[in-house]
Amino acid sequence: METILLFEIMGTATLVLLGVGVVANALLPGTKGHGGGWLLINFGWGLGVFAGVFVAWGSGAHINPAITVGLMASGAEEYAPGIAVNLANTLTYFGAQIIGAFLGAVLAWVAYKKHYDEAEEPAAILGTFATGPERRSYGWNTATEVIGTYVLVLVVLMLGETPAELGPLAVAMLVVGIGASLGGPTGYAINPARDLGPRLAHAVLPIRHKGDGDWAYSWVPIVGPIAGAALAGLTVMTFPLVS
Amino acid sequence: METILLFEIMGTATLVLLGVGVVANALLPGTKGHGGGWLLINFGWGLGVFAGVFVAWGSGAHINPAITVGLMASGAEEYAPGIAVNLANTLTYFGAQIIGAFLGAVLAWVAYKKHYDEAEEPAAILGTFATGPERRSYGWNTATEVIGTYVLVLVVLMLGETPAELGPLAVAMLVVGIGASLGGPTGYAINPARDLGPRLAHAVLPIRHKGDGDWAYSWVPIVGPIAGAALAGLTVMTFPLVS
Amino acid sequence: METILLFEIMGTATLVLLGVGVVANALLPGTKGHGGGWLLINFGWGLGVFAGVFVAWGSGAHINPAITVGLMASGAEEYAPGIAVNLANTLTYFGAQIIGAFLGAVLAWVAYKKHYDEAEEPAAILGTFATGPERRSYGWNTATEVIGTYVLVLVVLMLGETPAELGPLAVAMLVVGIGASLGGPTGYAINPARDLGPRLAHAVLPIRHKGDGDWAYSWVPIVGPIAGAALAGLTVMTFPLVS
Amino acid sequence: METILLFEIMGTATLVLLGVGVVANALLPGTKGHGGGWLLINFGWGLGVFAGVFVAWGSGAHINPAITVGLMASGAEEYAPGIAVNLANTLTYFGAQIIGAFLGAVLAWVAYKKHYDEAEEPAAILGTFATGPERRSYGWNTATEVIGTYVLVLVVLMLGETPAELGPLAVAMLVVGIGASLGGPTGYAINPARDLGPRLAHAVLPIRHKGDGDWAYSWVPIVGPIAGAALAGLTVMTFPLVS
Repeated sequence: METILLFEIMGTATLVLLGVGVVANALLPGTKGHGGGWLLINFGWGLGVFAGVFVAWGSGAHINPAITVGLMASGAEEYAPGIAVNLANTLTYFGAQIIGAFLGAVLAWVAYKKHYDEAEEPAAILGTFATGPERRSYGWNTATEVIGTYVLVLVVLMLGETPAELGPLAVAMLVVGIGASLGGPTGYAINPARDLGPRLAHAVLPIRHKGDGDWAYSWVPIVGPIAGAALAGLTVMTFPLVS
Repeated sequence: METILLFEIMGTATLVLLGVGVVANALLPGTKGHGGGWLLINFGWGLGVFAGVFVAWGSGAHINPAITVGLMASGAEEYAPGIAVNLANTLTYFGAQIIGAFLGAVLAWVAYKKHYDEAEEPAAILGTFATGPERRSYGWNTATEVIGTYVLVLVVLMLGETPAELGPLAVAMLVVGIGASLGGPTGYAINPARDLGPRLAHAVLPIRHKGDGDWAYSWVPIVGPIAGAALAGLTVMTFPLVS
Repeated sequence: METILLFEIMGTATLVLLGVGVVANALLPGTKGHGGGWLLINFGWGLGVFAGVFVAWGSGAHINPAITVGLMASGAEEYAPGIAVNLANTLTYFGAQIIGAFLGAVLAWVAYKKHYDEAEEPAAILGTFATGPERRSYGWNTATEVIGTYVLVLVVLMLGETPAELGPLAVAMLVVGIGASLGGPTGYAINPARDLGPRLAHAVLPIRHKGDGDWAYSWVPIVGPIAGAALAGLTVMTFPLVS
Repeated sequence: METILLFEIMGTATLVLLGVGVVANALLPGTKGHGGGWLLINFGWGLGVFAGVFVAWGSGAHINPAITVGLMASGAEEYAPGIAVNLANTLTYFGAQIIGAFLGAVLAWVAYKKHYDEAEEPAAILGTFATGPERRSYGWNTATEVIGTYVLVLVVLMLGETPAELGPLAVAMLVVGIGASLGGPTGYAINPARDLGPRLAHAVLPIRHKGDGDWAYSWVPIVGPIAGAALAGLTVMTFPLVS
């Protein structure tokens, strides 16, 4: 259990540090990457996953509750070598991921402190921490998150079937692609911890012009990714040839 | 045959979901990637192939009739381990690829539903689904598709000759490159299913301001890629040292 | 000798087709990638090398006289397995590379025919084929080409020392990087054939508003890369531990 | 000791040549990449590391004092096969890295000579050589550099735990990601030699409109990265399962 906690906290913190960081760079005033565009944000998040997977190798590098759920739904017996699929471990993964995401967001805030001080638009400030829809519609927004996470978890669960020594790079590029292609409407949480942890950090941190945390939306990036992940796990379980 | 159907439908749907998705993100109003530029679109399609190849591993991951045609023309005996090159299998590949592409486009429409609702330009709406020429000239447009697909299929058929553990990443980057370099005139179908499936989805889906489907052009992204793929297959067959 | 001719012509044509293509996409009027920016051009050329290296595997995938020169200067005994370093083979490489580059440029012109028809700026037209300096100064321009090619050839010659199964991707990313970093002043020929072949194609092709071929500059992208490659080869030869 | 000197000078010079080069391309007047944006700069630096790591294979490819410090703090016994961790070697690494960074900056200046001649903004000129904060605050700027370097060194030290044949590409992509995500406030030195060497070159080179070298800031990109690297090394040392 200490293994899960240590590696998932460290890995998810790394992921969210780089992910919140790239949005801060693109949205906050006065940064070198201000206005850097969507592809910059996609690469920042994708390479955040890249770094996080290396850091979290000891726990199987889930760093996303959707991966944990997907493995469970696929009928896997272990979350990582020596870590059984059971309730206690599942909850430990979830807790560690949320704690790590919270800490990563705090670190990103430290890195961009002077720019957060200067930021005057509450929506941009919140946008660096949590996802939010461009067109609010809880049903369609949830559908978008289901679809994006389904692709993520389906491919991750099938990575082992294809011989290619890409390892973390495969997941990183996949996240770049899902962001580029399916991130347009909701900002692609595709990871409940990635959204909840930073949203909690936003609530706690002393940021001058921050507004409310849009908690009315906060269930979408939790429910959508979990549903998408469960569907992906069930899909893989029914594939005839997949071991 | 179930193997071909299952994997090619799933894989091509994944490819087209991400491909149509990235164009929707770049072209539709109000998305986070609006105006994201050509390189964003290239990465979206390239990484759509990346994800699709992982998903479709069980059928050899063609997810493109041009690959199927290229293998046939090259004199290959199998489309994938245990799947013989014969008419029934060929037609199954084609059918599965078109069905998958149709489904992928429907899913992309679901993901971007609120933005399609709001879109008012028929050309932009069709542009998210199907390819179209910037300067209409059926002959030259076909030539562009022949050339782009020739490069795609030639390199895919020769991947096995070069020792590099890139697997799906090689095809993904190749598609990024062909899009960047040869996509300027026609939008690089280089895959008949990628164009026909979404064009059918465009015809069927209830999109408020959609216009006609430009069916007069629809044979170009079928004939061009098939011709290019056949030429590439014949090229490889005549290479002296290629096995 | 047929092996060299076949593979180097095919590979260099592929490289230049994608390379000239991406600049046409970025510079010519009415393309989907018009104004796509420097990073788009860097990826187009880098992935052109990527595709070209896969196609030219049979001849060691030089597809650039600078690589041939660098191998010679490094004291290598073979240009590729079974192909000795001697004058006849060297000249065959050079000739095949120039022929391939010429053919690739012609194919790119075919792919972008309608856009070349429409183009009205001679400098932009020539810019899609050949390199040219932003600030003309034969000495400094040559120095820039020497430095860029030195990095290219040095790293290519040392690739084998580092265990990484990247193969053609390593060279592709290296070219993206050299273009991003050292392409600003002269457009990074770093390959004499890449410049001379398309410049010849520009002279021959019937393009409405083309101007002269700036032959006064044409020696710079030949002399600079050859000098840089020779320096890189000599550097590697003097490295104490390199085999 | 000659091995360290040779490879670290060559590798760090390559890194800084491409790194200073890409910023010169983006910031100096009249270049082909002028105004190319943050992602272009990130790829230029990341691929500079890529090239530098291949060149510096013989010394373990530190090319960054932070890596040397991180290895020391992690309790490693060797800096590279056959190179012991001791004071003399440590200082040799540091000296070679600073010399290499100086030489790389001089070469980048040669490559962009005509554009440096023309540049009239001292801040842009210095910005191509050394890092500088967008909002000056020595404490927060240092914190940003600590965090960025911590991520870099932590992941580099853990690369060996994850089986993936990425080699130098892993470090390159990591640097792209850290730049995209954490480079916004200070320009991500994350490498003391990368900042000090070019700042010295800026002091020495005859550049018409250069201003002062902002030496008041110069300790931040030294102290921050060294502190971050030491923290990362200590972190790895305390990880239970890491060998």
